[in-house]
Amino acid sequence: MTTTELPDSMTCSIERAVTLLGERWTPLILRELHTGVVRFGDIQQRLGIATNLLTARLATLAAAGVVEKRPYREAGARTRYEYHLTDAGRDALVILGALQQWGDRHAPRLGGPTIERRDRRTGALLDVSFTDPEGRAVPLDAVAFVRTGG
Amino acid sequence: MTTTELPDSMTCSIERAVTLLGERWTPLILRELHTGVVRFGDIQQRLGIATNLLTARLATLAAAGVVEKRPYREAGARTRYEYHLTDAGRDALVILGALQQWGDRHAPRLGGPTIERRDRRTGALLDVSFTDPEGRAVPLDAVAFVRTGG
Repeated sequence: MTTTELPDSMTCSIERAVTLLGERWTPLILRELHTGVVRFGDIQQRLGIATNLLTARLATLAAAGVVEKRPYREAGARTRYEYHLTDAGRDALVILGALQQWGDRHAPRLGGPTIERRDRRTGALLDVSFTDPEGRAVPLDAVAFVRTGG
Repeated sequence: MTTTELPDSMTCSIERAVTLLGERWTPLILRELHTGVVRFGDIQQRLGIATNLLTARLATLAAAGVVEKRPYREAGARTRYEYHLTDAGRDALVILGALQQWGDRHAPRLGGPTIERRDRRTGALLDVSFTDPEGRAVPLDAVAFVRTGG
Protein backbone atom coordinates (compact mmCIF):
# COMPACT_ATOMS: atom_id res chain seq x y z
CA MET A 1 0.00 0.00 0.00
CA THR A 2 1.38 3.40 -0.92
CA THR A 3 0.96 6.35 1.38
CA THR A 4 -1.50 8.03 -0.97
CA GLU A 5 -4.07 5.25 -0.67
CA LEU A 6 -6.79 5.44 1.93
CA PRO A 7 -6.23 2.93 4.70
CA ASP A 8 -9.87 1.88 4.76
CA SER A 9 -13.38 3.19 4.49
CA MET A 10 -13.46 4.37 8.11
CA THR A 11 -10.91 7.01 7.38
CA CYS A 12 -12.49 7.57 4.01
CA SER A 13 -15.90 8.56 5.36
CA ILE A 14 -14.29 10.48 8.22
CA GLU A 15 -12.14 12.36 5.76
CA ARG A 16 -15.13 13.26 3.68
CA ALA A 17 -17.04 14.60 6.67
CA VAL A 18 -13.98 16.43 7.97
CA THR A 19 -13.21 18.00 4.62
CA LEU A 20 -16.78 19.18 4.25
CA LEU A 21 -17.50 20.39 7.78
CA GLY A 22 -14.03 21.62 8.62
CA GLU A 23 -13.99 24.33 5.99
CA ARG A 24 -13.61 27.79 7.39
CA TRP A 25 -17.03 29.43 8.03
CA THR A 26 -18.99 26.23 7.48
CA PRO A 27 -19.64 25.51 11.19
CA LEU A 28 -20.87 29.06 11.66
CA ILE A 29 -23.13 28.82 8.62
CA LEU A 30 -24.65 25.56 9.84
CA ARG A 31 -25.25 27.10 13.25
CA GLU A 32 -27.11 30.04 11.67
CA LEU A 33 -29.25 27.72 9.54
CA HIS A 34 -30.08 25.62 12.60
CA THR A 35 -31.03 28.78 14.50
CA GLY A 36 -33.49 29.67 11.74
CA VAL A 37 -31.40 32.28 9.94
CA VAL A 38 -31.90 30.79 6.47
CA ARG A 39 -31.90 33.66 3.97
CA PHE A 40 -28.68 34.45 2.15
CA GLY A 41 -28.71 38.13 3.07
CA ASP A 42 -29.51 37.44 6.72
CA ILE A 43 -26.72 34.87 7.05
CA GLN A 44 -24.29 37.24 5.40
CA GLN A 45 -25.26 40.08 7.71
CA ARG A 46 -25.02 37.97 10.86
CA LEU A 47 -21.62 36.54 10.04
CA GLY A 48 -20.01 39.42 8.18
CA ILE A 49 -18.84 36.97 5.51
CA ALA A 50 -17.97 37.98 1.95
CA THR A 51 -20.67 37.27 -0.65
CA ASN A 52 -18.46 35.09 -2.83
CA LEU A 53 -17.34 33.00 0.14
CA LEU A 54 -20.88 32.46 1.42
CA THR A 55 -22.01 31.54 -2.09
CA ALA A 56 -19.18 29.02 -2.38
CA ARG A 57 -19.79 27.43 1.02
CA LEU A 58 -23.53 27.09 0.48
CA ALA A 59 -22.94 25.56 -2.96
CA THR A 60 -20.58 22.99 -1.46
CA LEU A 61 -23.06 22.16 1.30
CA ALA A 62 -25.91 21.86 -1.20
CA ALA A 63 -23.85 19.58 -3.45
CA ALA A 64 -23.08 17.40 -0.42
CA GLY A 65 -26.79 17.15 0.42
CA VAL A 66 -26.36 18.96 3.71
CA VAL A 67 -28.47 21.98 2.81
CA GLU A 68 -31.40 22.44 0.43
CA LYS A 69 -31.69 25.64 -1.58
CA ARG A 70 -35.23 27.04 -1.87
CA PRO A 71 -36.35 30.06 -3.87
CA TYR A 72 -38.57 32.69 -2.31
CA ARG A 73 -39.85 35.99 -3.61
CA GLU A 74 -41.11 39.01 -1.80
CA ALA A 75 -43.59 41.38 -3.50
CA GLY A 76 -41.80 43.63 -5.97
CA ALA A 77 -38.43 41.95 -5.49
CA ARG A 78 -36.54 39.43 -7.58
CA THR A 79 -36.34 35.79 -6.63
CA ARG A 80 -33.92 35.15 -3.78
CA TYR A 81 -32.87 31.99 -1.98
CA GLU A 82 -32.99 30.52 1.43
CA TYR A 83 -31.18 27.44 2.69
CA HIS A 84 -32.51 24.71 4.92
CA LEU A 85 -30.67 21.93 6.70
CA THR A 86 -31.50 18.47 5.36
CA ASP A 87 -31.58 15.44 7.66
CA ALA A 88 -27.87 15.02 6.92
CA GLY A 89 -27.30 18.64 7.84
CA ARG A 90 -29.16 18.31 11.11
CA ASP A 91 -27.22 15.14 11.95
CA ALA A 92 -23.97 17.01 11.30
CA LEU A 93 -24.76 19.21 14.31
CA VAL A 94 -23.67 16.31 16.50
CA ILE A 95 -20.21 16.50 14.91
CA LEU A 96 -20.06 20.25 15.43
CA GLY A 97 -21.13 19.84 19.04
CA ALA A 98 -18.47 17.17 19.62
CA LEU A 99 -15.78 19.38 18.05
CA GLN A 100 -16.79 22.41 20.12
CA GLN A 101 -16.91 20.38 23.31
CA TRP A 102 -13.43 19.02 22.68
CA GLY A 103 -12.10 22.46 21.84
CA ASP A 104 -13.66 23.95 24.97
CA ARG A 105 -12.16 21.27 27.18
CA HIS A 106 -8.78 20.75 25.62
CA ALA A 107 -7.91 23.83 23.60
CA PRO A 108 -9.80 26.42 25.66
CA ARG A 109 -10.02 30.04 24.75
CA LEU A 110 -9.23 32.80 27.25
CA GLY A 111 -12.56 34.19 28.41
CA GLY A 112 -14.36 30.90 27.94
CA PRO A 113 -16.31 29.38 25.07
CA THR A 114 -18.13 31.64 22.61
CA ILE A 115 -20.77 29.04 21.83
CA GLU A 116 -22.70 26.92 24.29
CA ARG A 117 -24.97 24.01 23.56
CA ARG A 118 -28.20 24.28 25.51
CA ASP A 119 -31.55 22.53 25.70
CA ARG A 120 -33.94 25.15 24.37
CA ARG A 121 -36.73 23.72 26.53
CA THR A 122 -34.89 23.85 29.86
CA GLY A 123 -31.81 25.99 29.25
CA ALA A 124 -29.58 23.15 30.52
CA LEU A 125 -26.03 22.94 29.18
CA LEU A 126 -25.63 19.90 26.95
CA ASP A 127 -22.82 17.43 26.39
CA VAL A 128 -22.15 15.23 23.41
CA SER A 129 -21.80 11.60 24.50
CA PHE A 130 -22.10 8.02 23.41
CA THR A 131 -25.61 6.82 24.19
CA ASP A 132 -27.14 3.36 24.42
CA PRO A 133 -30.38 2.25 22.72
CA GLU A 134 -32.37 3.56 25.71
CA GLY A 135 -30.85 7.01 25.21
CA ARG A 136 -28.62 6.92 28.26
CA ALA A 137 -25.06 8.26 28.23
CA VAL A 138 -22.34 5.57 28.23
CA PRO A 139 -18.92 6.28 29.76
CA LEU A 140 -15.97 6.36 27.35
CA ASP A 141 -14.23 3.40 28.92
CA ALA A 142 -17.25 1.23 28.09
CA VAL A 143 -17.13 2.17 24.39
CA ALA A 144 -15.58 -0.33 22.02
CA PHE A 145 -14.77 0.38 18.36
CA VAL A 146 -15.44 -2.96 16.74
CA ARG A 147 -14.22 -3.87 13.28
CA THR A 148 -16.98 -5.71 11.42
CA GLY A 149 -16.40 -8.42 8.90
CA GLY A 150 -17.72 -6.14 6.09
CA MET B 1 -12.16 41.11 7.44
CA THR B 2 -10.08 39.37 4.84
CA THR B 3 -10.78 35.82 3.84
CA THR B 4 -7.64 34.57 5.53
CA GLU B 5 -8.73 35.65 9.00
CA LEU B 6 -10.62 33.27 11.23
CA PRO B 7 -14.25 34.30 11.64
CA ASP B 8 -14.19 33.60 15.38
CA SER B 9 -12.87 31.23 17.96
CA MET B 10 -15.61 28.67 17.31
CA THR B 11 -14.24 27.97 13.89
CA CYS B 12 -10.75 28.33 15.27
CA SER B 13 -11.05 25.54 17.82
CA ILE B 14 -13.06 23.43 15.38
CA GLU B 15 -10.38 23.93 12.76
CA ARG B 16 -7.68 22.88 15.15
CA ALA B 17 -9.52 19.70 16.10
CA VAL B 18 -10.38 18.97 12.49
CA THR B 19 -6.84 19.50 11.30
CA LEU B 20 -5.48 17.22 13.98
CA LEU B 21 -8.05 14.42 13.92
CA GLY B 22 -8.83 14.54 10.22
CA GLU B 23 -5.33 13.53 9.14
CA ARG B 24 -5.20 10.33 7.20
CA TRP B 25 -4.55 7.31 9.50
CA THR B 26 -5.12 9.28 12.70
CA PRO B 27 -8.63 7.94 13.43
CA LEU B 28 -7.39 4.40 12.94
CA ILE B 29 -4.41 5.00 15.21
CA LEU B 30 -6.64 6.42 17.95
CA ARG B 31 -8.94 3.45 17.63
CA GLU B 32 -6.02 1.04 18.09
CA LEU B 33 -4.76 2.93 21.14
CA HIS B 34 -8.25 2.91 22.64
CA THR B 35 -8.49 -0.83 22.01
CA GLY B 36 -5.27 -1.34 23.96
CA VAL B 37 -2.89 -1.77 21.03
CA VAL B 38 -0.33 0.74 22.32
CA ARG B 39 3.12 -0.41 21.17
CA PHE B 40 4.59 1.06 18.03
CA GLY B 41 5.31 -2.29 16.40
CA ASP B 42 1.87 -3.67 17.23
CA ILE B 43 0.07 -0.62 15.84
CA GLN B 44 2.15 -0.78 12.71
CA GLN B 45 1.42 -4.45 12.20
CA ARG B 46 -2.33 -4.07 12.78
CA LEU B 47 -2.71 -1.16 10.39
CA GLY B 48 -0.09 -1.93 7.76
CA ILE B 49 1.10 1.67 7.92
CA ALA B 50 4.59 2.80 6.88
CA THR B 51 7.04 3.39 9.74
CA ASN B 52 7.73 7.00 8.83
CA LEU B 53 4.03 7.82 8.61
CA LEU B 54 3.21 6.21 11.95
CA THR B 55 6.15 8.02 13.55
CA ALA B 56 4.94 11.34 12.15
CA ARG B 57 1.31 10.83 13.21
CA LEU B 58 2.24 9.81 16.74
CA ALA B 59 4.60 12.77 17.07
CA THR B 60 1.80 15.14 16.01
CA LEU B 61 -0.63 13.55 18.46
CA ALA B 62 1.92 13.71 21.27
CA ALA B 63 2.66 17.38 20.54
CA ALA B 64 -1.07 18.09 20.67
CA GLY B 65 -1.35 16.38 24.05
CA VAL B 66 -3.61 13.67 22.71
CA VAL B 67 -1.22 10.79 23.32
CA GLU B 68 1.53 10.26 25.85
CA LYS B 69 4.73 8.46 24.82
CA ARG B 70 6.11 6.02 27.38
CA PRO B 71 9.34 4.02 27.17
CA TYR B 72 9.37 0.32 27.91
CA ARG B 73 12.09 -2.25 27.66
CA GLU B 74 11.94 -5.99 27.34
CA ALA B 75 14.81 -8.15 28.59
CA GLY B 76 17.72 -8.12 26.16
CA ALA B 77 16.07 -5.57 23.84
CA ARG B 78 16.60 -1.86 23.37
CA THR B 79 14.20 0.69 24.75
CA ARG B 80 11.01 0.95 22.75
CA TYR B 81 7.90 3.11 23.10
CA GLU B 82 4.26 2.72 23.69
CA TYR B 83 1.57 5.35 23.36
CA HIS B 84 -1.36 6.00 25.63
CA LEU B 85 -4.41 8.19 25.11
CA THR B 86 -4.52 11.17 27.45
CA ASP B 87 -7.83 12.54 28.73
CA ALA B 88 -7.90 14.75 25.64
CA GLY B 89 -7.30 11.70 23.47
CA ARG B 90 -10.10 9.75 25.12
CA ASP B 91 -12.47 12.70 24.73
CA ALA B 92 -11.60 12.85 21.04
CA LEU B 93 -13.26 9.45 20.62
CA VAL B 94 -16.61 11.25 20.81
CA ILE B 95 -15.64 13.24 17.72
CA LEU B 96 -14.56 10.09 15.90
CA GLY B 97 -17.81 8.40 16.87
CA ALA B 98 -19.84 11.35 15.63
CA LEU B 99 -17.94 11.40 12.33
CA GLN B 100 -18.37 7.67 11.80
CA GLN B 101 -22.08 7.82 12.64
CA TRP B 102 -22.58 10.63 10.15
CA GLY B 103 -20.62 8.80 7.47
CA ASP B 104 -22.58 5.60 8.06
CA ARG B 105 -25.92 7.37 7.79
CA HIS B 106 -25.25 9.88 5.06
CA ALA B 107 -22.30 8.65 3.03
CA PRO B 108 -22.79 4.92 3.50
CA ARG B 109 -20.43 2.34 2.15
CA LEU B 110 -21.63 -0.62 0.11
CA GLY B 111 -21.59 -3.61 2.43
CA GLY B 112 -22.27 -1.56 5.51
CA PRO B 113 -20.02 0.11 8.05
CA THR B 114 -16.58 -1.34 8.80
CA ILE B 115 -16.54 -0.03 12.35
CA GLU B 116 -19.33 -0.24 14.89
CA ARG B 117 -19.52 1.48 18.25
CA ARG B 118 -20.66 -0.95 20.92
CA ASP B 119 -21.05 -1.02 24.68
CA ARG B 120 -18.41 -3.51 25.75
CA ARG B 121 -20.50 -4.48 28.79
CA THR B 122 -23.71 -5.29 26.92
CA GLY B 123 -22.75 -5.45 23.25
CA ALA B 124 -25.42 -2.83 22.44
CA LEU B 125 -24.84 -0.60 19.42
CA LEU B 126 -24.19 2.98 20.50
CA ASP B 127 -25.14 6.35 19.08
CA VAL B 128 -23.48 9.70 19.59
CA SER B 129 -26.01 12.27 20.83
CA PHE B 130 -26.47 15.47 22.72
CA THR B 131 -27.14 14.63 26.37
CA ASP B 132 -28.54 16.65 29.25
CA PRO B 133 -26.95 16.92 32.73
CA GLU B 134 -28.78 13.76 33.79
CA GLY B 135 -27.15 11.84 30.92
CA ARG B 136 -30.27 11.51 28.81
CA ALA B 137 -30.23 11.93 25.05
CA VAL B 138 -31.77 15.19 23.80
CA PRO B 139 -33.41 15.37 20.34
CA LEU B 140 -31.66 17.58 17.78
CA ASP B 141 -34.56 19.98 17.44
CA ALA B 142 -34.23 20.83 21.15
CA VAL B 143 -30.55 21.73 20.80
CA ALA B 144 -29.70 25.44 20.64
CA PHE B 145 -26.25 26.79 19.76
CA VAL B 146 -26.08 29.90 21.90
CA ARG B 147 -23.57 32.64 21.35
CA THR B 148 -22.22 33.78 24.72
CA GLY B 149 -21.19 37.33 25.51
CA GLY B 150 -17.52 36.20 25.81
